[in-house]
Amino acid sequence: MDKILRIKMSADSSPEVKTESMGDFAGLGGRGLTSAIISKEVPPTCHPLGEDNKLVIAPGLLSGSAAAMSGRISVGCKSPLTGGIKESNAGGQPSQMLGRLGYAAIVLEGKPKADTLYKVFVNKDGVEVKEDNSLCMLGNYAVVDKMKAEFGEKIGVISIGQAGEQKLAGASIAFSDMEVRPTRHAGRGGVGAVMGSKGIKAIVVDDAGCGVRSPADPEKFKAANKTFVAGLRKHPVTGEGLPAYGTNVLTNVINEAGAYPTKNFMWGNFDNCQKISGETEAEIENARGGEGSATHGCHRGCVIRCSGTYYDKDGNYLTKQPEYETVWAHGGNCGIDDLDAIAEIDRMDDDFGLDTIEMGATVAVAMEAGLAEFGDAEAAIRLVKEVGEGTPLGKILGSGAAVTGKVFGVERVPVVKGQSMPAYDPRGVQGQGVTYATSTMGADHTAGYAVATNILGIGGTVDPLKPEGQVELSRNLQIATAAVDSTGMCVFIAFAILDQTDTFQALLDLIGGFIGAEMTADGVTDLGKKILIMEREFNEKAGFTSKHDRLPDYFKSEKLPPHDVTFAVTDEELDQVFNF
Amino acid sequence: MDKILRIKMSADSSPEVKTESMGDFAGLGGRGLTSAIISKEVPPTCHPLGEDNKLVIAPGLLSGSAAAMSGRISVGCKSPLTGGIKESNAGGQPSQMLGRLGYAAIVLEGKPKADTLYKVFVNKDGVEVKEDNSLCMLGNYAVVDKMKAEFGEKIGVISIGQAGEQKLAGASIAFSDMEVRPTRHAGRGGVGAVMGSKGIKAIVVDDAGCGVRSPADPEKFKAANKTFVAGLRKHPVTGEGLPAYGTNVLTNVINEAGAYPTKNFMWGNFDNCQKISGETEAEIENARGGEGSATHGCHRGCVIRCSGTYYDKDGNYLTKQPEYETVWAHGGNCGIDDLDAIAEIDRMDDDFGLDTIEMGATVAVAMEAGLAEFGDAEAAIRLVKEVGEGTPLGKILGSGAAVTGKVFGVERVPVVKGQSMPAYDPRGVQGQGVTYATSTMGADHTAGYAVATNILGIGGTVDPLKPEGQVELSRNLQIATAAVDSTGMCVFIAFAILDQTDTFQALLDLIGGFIGAEMTADGVTDLGKKILIMEREFNEKAGFTSKHDRLPDYFKSEKLPPHDVTFAVTDEELDQVFNF
Repeated sequence: MDKILRIKMSADSSPEVKTESMGDFAGLGGRGLTSAIISKEVPPTCHPLGEDNKLVIAPGLLSGSAAAMSGRISVGCKSPLTGGIKESNAGGQPSQMLGRLGYAAIVLEGKPKADTLYKVFVNKDGVEVKEDNSLCMLGNYAVVDKMKAEFGEKIGVISIGQAGEQKLAGASIAFSDMEVRPTRHAGRGGVGAVMGSKGIKAIVVDDAGCGVRSPADPEKFKAANKTFVAGLRKHPVTGEGLPAYGTNVLTNVINEAGAYPTKNFMWGNFDNCQKISGETEAEIENARGGEGSATHGCHRGCVIRCSGTYYDKDGNYLTKQPEYETVWAHGGNCGIDDLDAIAEIDRMDDDFGLDTIEMGATVAVAMEAGLAEFGDAEAAIRLVKEVGEGTPLGKILGSGAAVTGKVFGVERVPVVKGQSMPAYDPRGVQGQGVTYATSTMGADHTAGYAVATNILGIGGTVDPLKPEGQVELSRNLQIATAAVDSTGMCVFIAFAILDQTDTFQALLDLIGGFIGAEMTADGVTDLGKKILIMEREFNEKAGFTSKHDRLPDYFKSEKLPPHDVTFAVTDEELDQVFNF
Repeated sequence: MDKILRIKMSADSSPEVKTESMGDFAGLGGRGLTSAIISKEVPPTCHPLGEDNKLVIAPGLLSGSAAAMSGRISVGCKSPLTGGIKESNAGGQPSQMLGRLGYAAIVLEGKPKADTLYKVFVNKDGVEVKEDNSLCMLGNYAVVDKMKAEFGEKIGVISIGQAGEQKLAGASIAFSDMEVRPTRHAGRGGVGAVMGSKGIKAIVVDDAGCGVRSPADPEKFKAANKTFVAGLRKHPVTGEGLPAYGTNVLTNVINEAGAYPTKNFMWGNFDNCQKISGETEAEIENARGGEGSATHGCHRGCVIRCSGTYYDKDGNYLTKQPEYETVWAHGGNCGIDDLDAIAEIDRMDDDFGLDTIEMGATVAVAMEAGLAEFGDAEAAIRLVKEVGEGTPLGKILGSGAAVTGKVFGVERVPVVKGQSMPAYDPRGVQGQGVTYATSTMGADHTAGYAVATNILGIGGTVDPLKPEGQVELSRNLQIATAAVDSTGMCVFIAFAILDQTDTFQALLDLIGGFIGAEMTADGVTDLGKKILIMEREFNEKAGFTSKHDRLPDYFKSEKLPPHDVTFAVTDEELDQVFNF
């Protein structure tokens, strides 16, 4: 991975394709690379949909190698949703494939002629950019089908649906999975709208003829990988819980903790949660599918395998196994307890190219506005359908919860920096609240997953309902995550490396063996800090202050049942998160 | 004016009415009072539609006295449009009436039961607050008719239309004029949405039995008033231009200067501008009306009389004479050259309770998004109609240009701090650009009307196309305006007091004679600075930084024909505006 592919769109001429060496960016990957390019090249005050913004798609440092779990990909830009810097992370196949093709990043730049759509094809022989208006307003599933028909079955596809084309701030970018379906998404922050503003509907990747990337120290690398995989397999979360039930194993856990945001963050418990739990989901999938639905990975080299397949009542493929956050967003958060309806919405989100978290939060805000009753699954389906159809209501909803709240005059809108909170109430998991408030990304769970320590007891214990210790916890997690997001590693490895020192050492050796240098814990921390500082600086130049590192006021005054807690971390404490 | 009326809405009990003395706020009026109350009592991070926000309606210091031009009123709150502090200023009768009743301010607080509307009646005997859901979703004209039927013909009415009830960020508050029609509006910043969030549809004021307020030094006051009025009458703008053609006298002037924002700020000239100029408007009005249409004031005691009446083709009353900014917003800015259509939209804006500037800017952004062709008057009428009907599209448009741009993915959105720019392109009148960028109010022309000096040569000369001198000009005007907005005086007196030292001295003596103290130019400046500092502090605590004191990037790169200029005042210079 020694080159950057730049595609410059222009209203006056054909797209310009350029491949260049890493230059100043040498040694960076994933989030480290996307945030470095955005920080250096994008004016922080530019319009997110304008010609000065760039979309950077970067595999991780280890992507394309034989390292287990290394198939994540980072998408960076100035976010149309938050107005700040964005790294949105996805699984799927394209990361490994781009890694093998030698691309550390694809950078989309400039602004095309209006109303012209392009597709990009990348293989070992080079890069082609072609106009293709036949793709106009197609969903991701149809796009992938057309690309398979044109380029064969062994491709990876990076694409946008109707939402990205409409440049909606809730739009995601789809990355095809091992079955070449558009089910893995860089969901957060409206990255799909930026791809839409560049006029690029699909990037097709074919790594035929490219071998696996070779480590600098094969012996060390191989040994470390073995220990690393063994560590993941022996940890109860990565070795048992996630493979058995997928991420939705969390529904019962978070609900029992009283931190399950229910009906637009009104309650911390959802009465009917067992109807949409991971355990129930696995039962349904096994009954309908029968071919080992819970044993999928989302990319080659995954050993956790938290994904699966969701079949409809007739046994036909409907969508990938909806994730915990999706099931929560379209389920408990809307008072909906019907997994089939949730799966149908998940399929629509994937097809239209929408962030399931943002859309679930948005539907709940719409319900609070009176557009539908909480619990009305048919109404929720109808609302999301409008986004794909591009109606005015659909455009409001597709713009996310903050805009929907503004347009309908709703006061209780659970966003930070314009981005919706995910599936953990910040009052019930106060460490998560610190991450929501202070993350450079807006409200984001993966940016510093304090649930691990607050609820699951991983990496120590910190009482979820008290402010003590939360700032330090979130700070350390945010630093570690920024580094992990640069490697291409799935963030779920954190469960094992936080609990098992030998697995953490194996990760360091895996990276060290690959790049041919000694990697230390301090080195990882330094990388994480460097990335966060870069991102904070961008946001500061874009106009963010400490006042934006806050939860909406009502989380500090409205008590969350059943524990009747408010968010108790003070503003002064929040301002210490980046004091490192 | 020695008392403050507070009406506290509550979900659990009836509204609580309290009259209290001025306390800490003694000696303040208008904007000085609204900004002081908001600064002291409203948490800067609160939700603008929540129970912690307050709506303050305050006549000026001189309102209710015999001082000419003293009938303006200030409305303050945390703005749903900008997220910062807001003072929105209006004419009409209620200011003089409230002054005579002795109220320095009405403060609406708290949050009512959902779906209950209230009306308030204030006269010399006291205050009544009553439920009245029969007013639900009525336009301002119908509300005023109902209030006249109930309370008689000699009332003043402060009301909201459908937009305020929907809590749309473009919603205004209507103040009835001398003909008891809802034609004078506190337009900017979504103040109508805050009134809507308090559940108050109308405040009816009856000053029967109350005399004019007495000055402390009647001799000095009377003499000063005489000189002041003579000064206004002898100045060419306040004595000739405005009375003859109303504010729309500016259309030809600004167009000739190449600073007339045309088709969403694409050009500085509008080819067909003579069809919508003040001269043409006066001709039409005189031909159709015939009863001296250009000689109205908007309130008792006005000697400039820039208002008039617009009749339809059959000679029936349609609306008040549309102002320059309205004619521009719905006219040239949308490529529309049909005064009848513009007047029809003006009527709808007044009836629905919408800021005409925000709505015109929004329709132009919608046109740029492809919802209609520039110049299509029928389409513009249809779009604005949707706001009153409360359709999803109407809710988008009624939320203003920034939201509309976001929902439809438009890059060229001429807003600062979320508020639309008025009728002067900041590239063609660079001093105005400085005011737009730095005003505590968001893009606002009256906050520091540099057009006076840049274009009209009043108070000196500063080249409108060059950056030199603009910061100092805007600074001085912003300081002076904040003070004038506290007196109840119409901002148009500025033309005469900037040019004529004796008129300025007369103003000082008028205030001094009224309060019984010596008023100096320094005293006025100190008051203005104090208000601006207070407002800046509120905005800073709400999260604004110098990065928000900027025009959108494209004004710095896109050249405005015919002068082919960009906005050339640097960021460093902008940061000096409040360096006093």
